[in-house]
Amino acid sequence: MQTVAIFGVGLIGGSFALALRRAGFTGEILGVSSSTTITEAIRLGVIDRGASMGEAASRADLIYLAQPIRQILQSIGGLAPHLKAGALVTDAGSTKVEIAGRAKLLLPANSFLGGHPMAGKAVRGVSAAEAGLFEGRTYFLCAPDPSVLEHPVAERLVEYVRKFGAHPVIIGAPEHDRLVSLTSHLPQLASTALASTLSRLLDEDSARNGAGPGLFDMTRLAQSSFELWSDILFTNATSIDLALGLYIEELLRIRKVLNKDEIGSTFERGSNFAAFLRKAKC
Amino acid sequence: MQTVAIFGVGLIGGSFALALRRAGFTGEILGVSSSTTITEAIRLGVIDRGASMGEAASRADLIYLAQPIRQILQSIGGLAPHLKAGALVTDAGSTKVEIAGRAKLLLPANSFLGGHPMAGKAVRGVSAAEAGLFEGRTYFLCAPDPSVLEHPVAERLVEYVRKFGAHPVIIGAPEHDRLVSLTSHLPQLASTALASTLSRLLDEDSARNGAGPGLFDMTRLAQSSFELWSDILFTNATSIDLALGLYIEELLRIRKVLNKDEIGSTFERGSNFAAFLRKAKC
Repeated sequence: MQTVAIFGVGLIGGSFALALRRAGFTGEILGVSSSTTITEAIRLGVIDRGASMGEAASRADLIYLAQPIRQILQSIGGLAPHLKAGALVTDAGSTKVEIAGRAKLLLPANSFLGGHPMAGKAVRGVSAAEAGLFEGRTYFLCAPDPSVLEHPVAERLVEYVRKFGAHPVIIGAPEHDRLVSLTSHLPQLASTALASTLSRLLDEDSARNGAGPGLFDMTRLAQSSFELWSDILFTNATSIDLALGLYIEELLRIRKVLNKDEIGSTFERGSNFAAFLRKAKC
Repeated sequence: MQTVAIFGVGLIGGSFALALRRAGFTGEILGVSSSTTITEAIRLGVIDRGASMGEAASRADLIYLAQPIRQILQSIGGLAPHLKAGALVTDAGSTKVEIAGRAKLLLPANSFLGGHPMAGKAVRGVSAAEAGLFEGRTYFLCAPDPSVLEHPVAERLVEYVRKFGAHPVIIGAPEHDRLVSLTSHLPQLASTALASTLSRLLDEDSARNGAGPGLFDMTRLAQSSFELWSDILFTNATSIDLALGLYIEELLRIRKVLNKDEIGSTFERGSNFAAFLRKAKC
């Protein structure tokens, strides 16, 4: 693996480049992004130089697609004709079924391994990139066919993911999309719905006076960029619809037992789950 | 104001005592709590000594009820026969209508001013108490009749609340309970429902692998003590039921437009509200 090309040198793409360097990668890192981003990324030492999509695809051994999902879908089509023999394409998109489907149609057999690092930050852009972003995080890898994991570049990628301090988890694309609809997409919509509900009901004084620390936690995700989330919602609507339905059912159940002793078991289940997560991750 | 009695020397009661001292109160601070708590509270310098409910009620100029709501309701009945002339009773309960109603029935006219500091911590108990707990927080005061605010001890209480760095907000009890059903009780149930829903659907490995930082934020409140929350739910069920209904309606609306452009406006409303809260508080 001599040359890596990062498509979309933002928070995730930039952090991947920095993490590669820290883990000992000495080859060339190309960036495919807007000219402003390329200038900034070179200044910050994140990439070596900018390249066109065609040049990057024809030179790189590993192509890392770190754009918003709809741009990843476009990039797969754009880079396909230029792809170097023996190269591997991977991505960092938050949903996997549509991307895997497109890759299967347009890329040579055994040249695509889907990826999704469960890492992020409130701040976006290459200036927020950091080598340690993936540390302690799950790094999902979706192999359309298990044999792609034996691709030499895929083996290197998995090694690097481990060196980043991340936990590679091999998972099927449909299973991935169902899982993150529950653990990531549902929490986002629960937060957005809460903030949106309250914005309709509270004037500024009431909101200011009534807000405690709990409301802050519960509305942090509501600040997320819709530019990223619209792609996630559009490409995982079926699973998210199901997750929302189950959440609404639980809220309806809670509403029915609000001042009955039975609600104690709901609190207990919730509290045990929250405690398990913290024990599991710390 | 020579003597203050704290009923329930836990996180809130203990912090009130410490904040009083830091703000220059030099009189005696009595504690009414279990003997273990009293020993600990004296050791930590939070109170001067323990007292029975009867002694505390007959000696104190200010009685501060910082117990769980149902115990506050009981204390009001218990202390009424012993109350010193000219004393003021206040409390720190998270709902106000039931407490104000009980005080109106059982306490002498103009001797009760309801209170609710919007402060808290994940850890409970007197050992977690701190003089700065109320800094920058709203401190709701519910006067059943405006004249109680002219009570000399009430005037001192408001002065102290300001000295704590808290923001006193005068509000009616029903209006208070409606407001916190939206800004505090609904966020709690949204978190509990999310954690409880996921606990039914995910095995341990999936939960561990799928959990990102957003899920951590959204499940922090789910860890809250049901002992405290059952009292809140039982004494504010009508407002909470309404708030839950509005939240469920918003989730249903979101579900309908999940992969339509219209969902952008929901994200925008939510994001603006979350940003406003942060601007207002920082």
